[in-house]
Amino acid sequence: TGTRDYNPKQMAIREKVFNTIIGCFKRHGAETIDTPVFELKETLTGKYGEDSKLIYDLKDQGGELLSLRYDLTVPFARYLAMNKITNIKRYHIAKVYRRDNPAMTRGRYREFYQCDFDIAGQYDAMIPDAECLKIVHEILSELDLGDFRIKVNDRRILDGMFAVCGVPDDKFRTICSTVDKLDKLPWEEVKKEMVNEKGLSEEAADQIGEYVSMQGGMDLAERLLQDQKMSQSKQACAGLSDIKLLFSYLQLFQVTDKVVFDLSLARGLDYYTGIIYEAVLTQAGVAPVTTDAQNGAPSEESVSVGSVAGGGRYDGLVGMFDPKGRKVPCVGVSIGIERVFSIMEQKAEASAEKVRTTEVQVMVASAQKNLLEEKLKLITELWNAGIKAEVMYKKNPKLLSQLQHCEESGIPLVAILGEQELKDGVVKLRVVATREEVQLIHNTHTVSLRRFKCGCNEKSRGG
Amino acid sequence: TGTRDYNPKQMAIREKVFNTIIGCFKRHGAETIDTPVFELKETLTGKYGEDSKLIYDLKDQGGELLSLRYDLTVPFARYLAMNKITNIKRYHIAKVYRRDNPAMTRGRYREFYQCDFDIAGQYDAMIPDAECLKIVHEILSELDLGDFRIKVNDRRILDGMFAVCGVPDDKFRTICSTVDKLDKLPWEEVKKEMVNEKGLSEEAADQIGEYVSMQGGMDLAERLLQDQKMSQSKQACAGLSDIKLLFSYLQLFQVTDKVVFDLSLARGLDYYTGIIYEAVLTQAGVAPVTTDAQNGAPSEESVSVGSVAGGGRYDGLVGMFDPKGRKVPCVGVSIGIERVFSIMEQKAEASAEKVRTTEVQVMVASAQKNLLEEKLKLITELWNAGIKAEVMYKKNPKLLSQLQHCEESGIPLVAILGEQELKDGVVKLRVVATREEVQLIHNTHTVSLRRFKCGCNEKSRGG
Repeated sequence: TGTRDYNPKQMAIREKVFNTIIGCFKRHGAETIDTPVFELKETLTGKYGEDSKLIYDLKDQGGELLSLRYDLTVPFARYLAMNKITNIKRYHIAKVYRRDNPAMTRGRYREFYQCDFDIAGQYDAMIPDAECLKIVHEILSELDLGDFRIKVNDRRILDGMFAVCGVPDDKFRTICSTVDKLDKLPWEEVKKEMVNEKGLSEEAADQIGEYVSMQGGMDLAERLLQDQKMSQSKQACAGLSDIKLLFSYLQLFQVTDKVVFDLSLARGLDYYTGIIYEAVLTQAGVAPVTTDAQNGAPSEESVSVGSVAGGGRYDGLVGMFDPKGRKVPCVGVSIGIERVFSIMEQKAEASAEKVRTTEVQVMVASAQKNLLEEKLKLITELWNAGIKAEVMYKKNPKLLSQLQHCEESGIPLVAILGEQELKDGVVKLRVVATREEVQLIHNTHTVSLRRFKCGCNEKSRGG
Repeated sequence: TGTRDYNPKQMAIREKVFNTIIGCFKRHGAETIDTPVFELKETLTGKYGEDSKLIYDLKDQGGELLSLRYDLTVPFARYLAMNKITNIKRYHIAKVYRRDNPAMTRGRYREFYQCDFDIAGQYDAMIPDAECLKIVHEILSELDLGDFRIKVNDRRILDGMFAVCGVPDDKFRTICSTVDKLDKLPWEEVKKEMVNEKGLSEEAADQIGEYVSMQGGMDLAERLLQDQKMSQSKQACAGLSDIKLLFSYLQLFQVTDKVVFDLSLARGLDYYTGIIYEAVLTQAGVAPVTTDAQNGAPSEESVSVGSVAGGGRYDGLVGMFDPKGRKVPCVGVSIGIERVFSIMEQKAEASAEKVRTTEVQVMVASAQKNLLEEKLKLITELWNAGIKAEVMYKKNPKLLSQLQHCEESGIPLVAILGEQELKDGVVKLRVVATREEVQLIHNTHTVSLRRFKCGCNEKSRGG
């Protein structure tokens, strides 16, 4: 079906990644919402261009025609329009569905998570946009995936560039799609497509080629504002001024070390209206570049896997769902979480450290037979005190199998009950890793539990 | 579509409930897994009896026939068989789908969450089963939904009871379904259905009626083991002995105060093979009982809303997915989370306390114009130090509107920058609720941040 189950180890990694991302979203004051997994088919119609063929429809079993959501942005826009919300900063983490050709060995599935953060509202230019980039910077740094770069560009700069290079108005979108392939194909191939397939003049293509090779920072934006040709386009100038403003905020946010103004960045989606951005991992080894055996060119997946976040400004989408067309300006970012998961999984595989799938702090065990009752009494005290504890579901398990379970699950402590300990009113607490043992008094509950808790916290941190 | 969006306030409540439930599952050492939202249609076929008509199918767009999952138990059993797992303790929280007649005003939707905890494996009798009940007890106590009762029974006791009351073997399942209606209908109605519709003799029905009126604890199980008729059934005796054993463990777990052995509990699902249980809220007012206007009888939804958890033992389900039919005994519980959400929402509505939808600790504000740069510098320091902070996306917001935002979002602290403070190298930190102010030195970063952090933690707890 092109989908997959997540096993407990994968879930443990997933939980860690989600906690980091949600922690960042919350640090920036985001609320969260949730929308249904299916939408009315008409809500999704006409939003994804050619990719609409990848939408999963539900069977018509009577009632409305429904489709599984394709992304979280369109449901978000529908939600804002439907509830007449004009200001919100929200995140949404949920699965989306695409009837794509699954490439499961490369971590591409038909069901996958998206992690979106968006700011909707009429605000002063580039402040929310800069915060989105700050968020990408924080998340990628904290996830520790290796070095990365965030490319930024603006749809208005692209459109202005096309205009001054002599691209006819009606070819902007299709030429933009061709430019979007620059992260997968060399310029020569892209130029060929522009000239041979899209019917652009060689001269226009060459001019585009010059621009899209440019990368820089605020200085590049300043230079292009002085550029004889580029400065003729009002649109391009508006975009370039905003890039300058953006970089001034990024300096205050201390993230310019990773951000590059890159004129080759185009991004596929139709609905972007202003700034666009994409984060790529640059560290060799993490995203191995393999080549397609058939033509020697890098295959699509192998090159594009480097992308781990992307987004931009879409000021027109909410208006499409409002009966009166009222616009709500939006800017947002989507973290490519599946790619992050697979990198984290690879790292976990390579590491000597075992991934724990439970958080159990202590195993309640016994050295002799017929102590189930005593063990269940003790574990009840532990659970009631909020301690994460396990006991085997056997009346008389062997001590060895109880200790083995600790080793396998990474449980740091084992509380061992025995006849003698019961007589003495004590519990033996053993650190599994070092076999170090302490005796805790167990006849006065308050005392023993307080000491137990301390032991659990210290030991589970240490072990 | 019979579905709903969750707004930020609902999500905040949902998150709190999930944290309580997941905390309990983790305290008991559970791992978690995830399965896709759709399964092969054939996986779901033949598992839900008459309810199969409520399954959502995907449109045949080429490829396999797929259906949206109807519950989490069948995907779990499929997962165990497919991966040849014979031992696991896992929880799974995810949405399931039913083409039911939505009763949205009563909180019934076609898309809703299930929270399942299950223990799979061949263990000594009743230990995992008792832990499931302990978990229900812990969760319902911690959620503080009001008083509750956990009814337990056993499929083998029901079957044995039917046998000794003279129900023909081939009518066990259908008579069981009729008994299941006892939580919605009075005995007279149920008896009528048994006799008139299911063709049972009046005498047999009356004997059943006597048994299903019985409620008690371990004592009732003991009495029934001595019961002349009941003791004739080996099955019933096995079930009764297990109920006795169960209660002995429940005593050690300190949960017998809420658990009742109730012979009228039947539960609809076919796959249960042993113990079954269901938790109901008993507090008046929380689950208002309205009557159906048409016939004066309590309508189905209004009475059954009291049920907030249910489950049981299903030793045969995994074997249905194994090519060799290898069985994996399972017992589990499902928390009726949607019902819990709506109770929590009602409580939040009724309470004077405002539900916060963000966790922002401090708002970075300014008293004068042209301080955006300074504010962005300060908030960068705060974010980088892990403090949850917000700033308005305006160059020159009014101080009043910044303070209003704090009031509305429940942000406890506001850091106010002004010309004088900047000159003096300090930041003014104000507690929104009390207007109390302190000045923090802001020229040596380390000192100021440490103090800032303390302030945030203390104040956000206090406020």
